[in-house]
Amino acid sequence: MPRLESALEFARQREQELVDRCVELLAIPSISTLPEHRGDVARAAQWLVDELHRVGIERAEVMETPGLPLVYAETPQVSDRPTVLVYGHFDVQPTDPIEEWDSDPFDAALRGEELFARGSSDMKCSLLAFVQAVEALQDGGDLPVNLKFLLEGEEEVGSPSLPDFIREHRDLLRADVAVNCDGETHSPTQPSICYALRGLAYFEIEVHGAKQDLHSGVFGGSLHNPAQALCELLAGMHDKDGRVTLPGFYDAVRPLDDEERAVLARVPLTDGEWRAMTGVPALWGETGYTLVERLGARPTLEVNGLVSGFTGEGAKTVLPAKALAKISMRLVADQNPDDIEGQLRAYLDQHAPETIAWEVRDLGRAPGAITARDSREMRAAQRALHDTFGAEPFFKREGGSVPVVGIMQQELGIDSIITGFRLPNSNMHGPNEKQHVPTLHKGVEAFIRLLLNLADSECT
Amino acid sequence: MPRLESALEFARQREQELVDRCVELLAIPSISTLPEHRGDVARAAQWLVDELHRVGIERAEVMETPGLPLVYAETPQVSDRPTVLVYGHFDVQPTDPIEEWDSDPFDAALRGEELFARGSSDMKCSLLAFVQAVEALQDGGDLPVNLKFLLEGEEEVGSPSLPDFIREHRDLLRADVAVNCDGETHSPTQPSICYALRGLAYFEIEVHGAKQDLHSGVFGGSLHNPAQALCELLAGMHDKDGRVTLPGFYDAVRPLDDEERAVLARVPLTDGEWRAMTGVPALWGETGYTLVERLGARPTLEVNGLVSGFTGEGAKTVLPAKALAKISMRLVADQNPDDIEGQLRAYLDQHAPETIAWEVRDLGRAPGAITARDSREMRAAQRALHDTFGAEPFFKREGGSVPVVGIMQQELGIDSIITGFRLPNSNMHGPNEKQHVPTLHKGVEAFIRLLLNLADSECT
Repeated sequence: MPRLESALEFARQREQELVDRCVELLAIPSISTLPEHRGDVARAAQWLVDELHRVGIERAEVMETPGLPLVYAETPQVSDRPTVLVYGHFDVQPTDPIEEWDSDPFDAALRGEELFARGSSDMKCSLLAFVQAVEALQDGGDLPVNLKFLLEGEEEVGSPSLPDFIREHRDLLRADVAVNCDGETHSPTQPSICYALRGLAYFEIEVHGAKQDLHSGVFGGSLHNPAQALCELLAGMHDKDGRVTLPGFYDAVRPLDDEERAVLARVPLTDGEWRAMTGVPALWGETGYTLVERLGARPTLEVNGLVSGFTGEGAKTVLPAKALAKISMRLVADQNPDDIEGQLRAYLDQHAPETIAWEVRDLGRAPGAITARDSREMRAAQRALHDTFGAEPFFKREGGSVPVVGIMQQELGIDSIITGFRLPNSNMHGPNEKQHVPTLHKGVEAFIRLLLNLADSECT
Repeated sequence: MPRLESALEFARQREQELVDRCVELLAIPSISTLPEHRGDVARAAQWLVDELHRVGIERAEVMETPGLPLVYAETPQVSDRPTVLVYGHFDVQPTDPIEEWDSDPFDAALRGEELFARGSSDMKCSLLAFVQAVEALQDGGDLPVNLKFLLEGEEEVGSPSLPDFIREHRDLLRADVAVNCDGETHSPTQPSICYALRGLAYFEIEVHGAKQDLHSGVFGGSLHNPAQALCELLAGMHDKDGRVTLPGFYDAVRPLDDEERAVLARVPLTDGEWRAMTGVPALWGETGYTLVERLGARPTLEVNGLVSGFTGEGAKTVLPAKALAKISMRLVADQNPDDIEGQLRAYLDQHAPETIAWEVRDLGRAPGAITARDSREMRAAQRALHDTFGAEPFFKREGGSVPVVGIMQQELGIDSIITGFRLPNSNMHGPNEKQHVPTLHKGVEAFIRLLLNLADSECT
């Protein structure tokens, strides 16, 4: 039996085993943003080291960082084989609002073809699909490529330790290409390849009024309510065309040319589908761009959180002393995240009234990334997906941020093939996050083909 | 010794007794909003019944309501004497944040001239000052007026049972004038009379976007963020002159005439004092009105609470499904609180974009109140305060709402003289609430004079 067929057969006979291992890893509540779950993040790291040992990768270890630990592993490095650096993360988002979950987020529940759990689609299942692909290929002998694994536990908090770690381990991490398993598949029958990711700049804005909460009857009408002032400032951050008004925000944005607009127009996503999936009464966004363009190729500014005053049941007549917003900008090539804070401060300097005080705190930043669509490695991925799904993958840009892709470009000089087997409706970061299981099994097949294609010098 | 002198002398010899009785009542933690303190509210009611019996008022009893009990009492009703309905409340606010108190809120501590305890200035001490005034006058013979007492245990939760109780006991409560002891004194040397209170209309606005929280990278730029939409709606509720933009909001507002503006200009309150007291960088408010006018004679719209998305520590890249604001309007004569909800809905109908859905919930309403400044009863109060403090009281409007005043106007057809002996810096509702003791003793004198003046047909 040829190498490909035997590996595919190996995986097909172990579909239930893959689901079982996913359930086991999903049971570890590795929420990186909550201090009380630091131990769980470390536990997930050790679980993965054990799993890599199990499939025969002897060098696999937990490595400490100033923050949460990561996992490094490598197969024996054979010269004349391409070296592939595999990236994944094993931390997850918090579960709130917990009351909106239909089952325990850390007790994975299979309902129909979907596995429901926090971290299922983002991205423990895709990571274990890759591991199974490696296991399947090892079963037939040596691996066709040299593998290095870099798996982190801080992705959901913006990868604070990763840039320094990569910088300090340039030799260890040297590779020809990266495979980033944190991508998305368009539908169970339609594969896609992501060639660009948005960057991120995340801030907290706090507006201060009086030195303490006051009675809204006794004081109302004499002070600028900080919640109102904050709303005024946030409302002014978009104009009527849905464009961000921070000064200079669009100056560095790489414009879309006709060829790229044609590529993106192939993405089969309609406004109606998006509206139905999200449940909004009508879509919204920057005038002059299609939905797909707005989602991947244009920068945004979102309010992620807002809090002030009394938020419990019923009525309390308080005039709050302060109001807080969490906001984040998604950035595209060639915006520099380090410039954004200056633009935000310039906006606040210009628009904040003298009746309140404000402060801005930096909560993380990551560069965007863009990769050539016609490289040898991209074509290897294209063929692997085509042969697995029986459909030509289309190229898309993703709206989310995977900081490591830009960091690897900067520090290691390598591009990432971003592919993963989460579907767009997987409720990533929300309640009832889920992974479509048949697509996960296709993912194992696609990873097997990708690794073989990357090793195949004929594949051009 | 004339009647007045003997009563004043009686009270002066019993200053310590008054403080002792305050300490005793303040030890009962009658927090009406906390279910675990229901028994304490009932205990405070019974304590007051016993106290009224002690000073010789035989008909004093606890009366049940669908909520917490109240106290009703009356002296023998003699014809040809004016009847005065005395209002007070014996419930208190919660004590949180408890760690900011310098002493146990229910173990009253005298430091310097201040008695520190929850409920001291709001309003157990003023209530017991009135009781001592009655005791002092009774000592000299019959009371000069007929008294009825209506003391409630639900004021701090918005007096939910009081309107029906008053409606169902119109005959029992019939009187010529009300004395509401829940007012304020400007300073230890400067008395004041409140002739108007603002009303209230309190709402919750919820804005809905997607059917659940989404990833702000994957979805950002395609949907109208409900937190942003809510900010846009709230920001639009004031114009650049600080005026409320709800359609028709000012239509019924009674304008200030020159005479009333002159009266309010006498209130000794400067912008600088207010800024220092509150700690804001600069004052704010409706253009064209002084601070004192804005605080009492002009309606407002305040954001009392705001919440959306992720509000914990750190960063979460969520695009929230919904956003909620609590807002309340303070109303002046002749605004009808029942009209305000329609104005709010009309504003939202006009300004809410089709990209979101919204709903409004009613969280309570109360009428404003205004009393003629030149009535016989107001002049009786004016003279009592003048003679006690040796200074002409000024007339002021209060920004807060005391629902019972409007309800008594509507249901019993009587005005209220609002006077109490809490100072403005008394930390009412906050930590380290306090009552200035010398001002409390002046309060007893002023109440004695007020009751004599109300009985004096010469006093015009």
